[in-house]
Amino acid sequence: MAESFAPRRATPVFTRLAIIGIGLIGSSIARAAKELNLAGTIVLADQDAAVRQRARELDLGHAVADTAAEAADGADHIILCVPVGACGSVAAEIAPSLKAGAILSDVGSVKGSVVDAVLPHLPEGVSFVPAHPVAGTENSGPDAGFPSLFLNRWCILTPPEGTDAAAIAKTRQFWEGMGALVEVMSAQHHDLVLAVTSHLPHLIAYNIVGTAEDLEAVTQSEVIKFSAGGFRDFTRIAASDPTMWRDVFLHNKEAVLEMLGRFNEDLALLTRAIRYGDGETLHKHFTRTRAIRRGIVALGQEKPETEKLRKD
Amino acid sequence: MAESFAPRRATPVFTRLAIIGIGLIGSSIARAAKELNLAGTIVLADQDAAVRQRARELDLGHAVADTAAEAADGADHIILCVPVGACGSVAAEIAPSLKAGAILSDVGSVKGSVVDAVLPHLPEGVSFVPAHPVAGTENSGPDAGFPSLFLNRWCILTPPEGTDAAAIAKTRQFWEGMGALVEVMSAQHHDLVLAVTSHLPHLIAYNIVGTAEDLEAVTQSEVIKFSAGGFRDFTRIAASDPTMWRDVFLHNKEAVLEMLGRFNEDLALLTRAIRYGDGETLHKHFTRTRAIRRGIVALGQEKPETEKLRKD
Repeated sequence: MAESFAPRRATPVFTRLAIIGIGLIGSSIARAAKELNLAGTIVLADQDAAVRQRARELDLGHAVADTAAEAADGADHIILCVPVGACGSVAAEIAPSLKAGAILSDVGSVKGSVVDAVLPHLPEGVSFVPAHPVAGTENSGPDAGFPSLFLNRWCILTPPEGTDAAAIAKTRQFWEGMGALVEVMSAQHHDLVLAVTSHLPHLIAYNIVGTAEDLEAVTQSEVIKFSAGGFRDFTRIAASDPTMWRDVFLHNKEAVLEMLGRFNEDLALLTRAIRYGDGETLHKHFTRTRAIRRGIVALGQEKPETEKLRKD
Repeated sequence: MAESFAPRRATPVFTRLAIIGIGLIGSSIARAAKELNLAGTIVLADQDAAVRQRARELDLGHAVADTAAEAADGADHIILCVPVGACGSVAAEIAPSLKAGAILSDVGSVKGSVVDAVLPHLPEGVSFVPAHPVAGTENSGPDAGFPSLFLNRWCILTPPEGTDAAAIAKTRQFWEGMGALVEVMSAQHHDLVLAVTSHLPHLIAYNIVGTAEDLEAVTQSEVIKFSAGGFRDFTRIAASDPTMWRDVFLHNKEAVLEMLGRFNEDLALLTRAIRYGDGETLHKHFTRTRAIRRGIVALGQEKPETEKLRKD
């Protein structure tokens, strides 16, 4: 058997893992957990019959249940891999099936609103340890997943105050088992950090691609042809799943609007510098932004571009 | 000898090639032209003595001259690989050394202002064929270049009206020799197309990285750690050479301001949708931007991200 990207466990972390929602993230967890023996039995569920069928064909996990409640029944770890806006209703749906001692989790890109939506449905004796793996690609659906998606990527846990420490530790163990780096912070702080490192970039990327599409003087084929000048990086981000991202913006409204306000103030400054030919302001700004890039490359969260290009 | 990335020519396109400015682009041209036999003799020059020294150590081209005029002397193809704002003064400096029949070119990311700056200095009998290879990385300097940088990338030629057709054809032949795809358009149209596919994305990326850097509630180390959520793609663009980009914005002011205006109008619409919880507008917008991405991947200007990730 080929070597795995991370060590395979001798004994599973969980006895029965339920994954609700079989998209990029859900199917990647299923693949990783199976390959690395992180759960004795892995049961998946999805509200879309075609997706369930595809999951069976792909042999994801060990079983595909017809309903979320059926998948969650008897599970000691249940991960909601659905859009942020759907977490509350799925939690309500599976609540009667959750056994005492079970750990409920999710993978949403917004945490405050998910905590608010899920906690009212949480049965006595069940812990909720929200998780957000900061990883993804532009592709969606059960075919898009792959087991090493979380390798060397951060996964942020945002347990509400008073959450059972053992439940947090086990959730951490599960994500570390898939090769992720785990950090714990409050849901509020998470939503602020991600507003700037993820939500604002996505909104801006979606916006600029839309602006390019609407031009009359420049054809769409020209935009596509000459995209290597910077635009193509935005298109990758702007190809992300629309439903997931709609929910992110609707559920992290305050933080995103705050970041947008700052972004606009800063952009006004640069716009003014261009209009009045103030090269010094531009040069100064363009110089200081290099430091953050160096930090990202140094931390191994990205390879230098040249290296990637040369491999192509 | 190892096979080259593009066919090596039996006879060179130019007898003596002069490259003025030894940065990422200049050093990549020198490497490609030497490896593929595109010029009999390649002479480089740079105003920075340390860069000239480094070019000699790297054995770029066949000789490194002390001045631009010396490098240009007797050359039949001279390429200005300096920031857009320096093209006019370098053209003035080398003009007396240009021989009749020579073809002057450049690699600037803005074309209208370069044409305006260079044409007044162009001696009788010398052609000017401005070029813009739409290729690059986040790295700068003589060490950053590599010969396959232009392979399958577009190079846009913007010859002023009345330019000798043979000079255009030879310049095209030279770039195609390095594996580039060549397109000819007016300088005005080029500046509009690039304003949206390159200049606006760079400005936005520089801006968002600056915004992130200024936050008080989110630390710089958090921004770096959780950059995989979208932000890191912006940091790559925002790590580009500050002098080059200052000049781009100062010299393509009108088109960039026009694109910025449209960008802001569109962003106001999305901001409003977030503020008022209008999920339908968001979803609709996020869906239509996917089409452009598919076009870019289909045209081979980018590999799907998953493929790249899986190779890592």
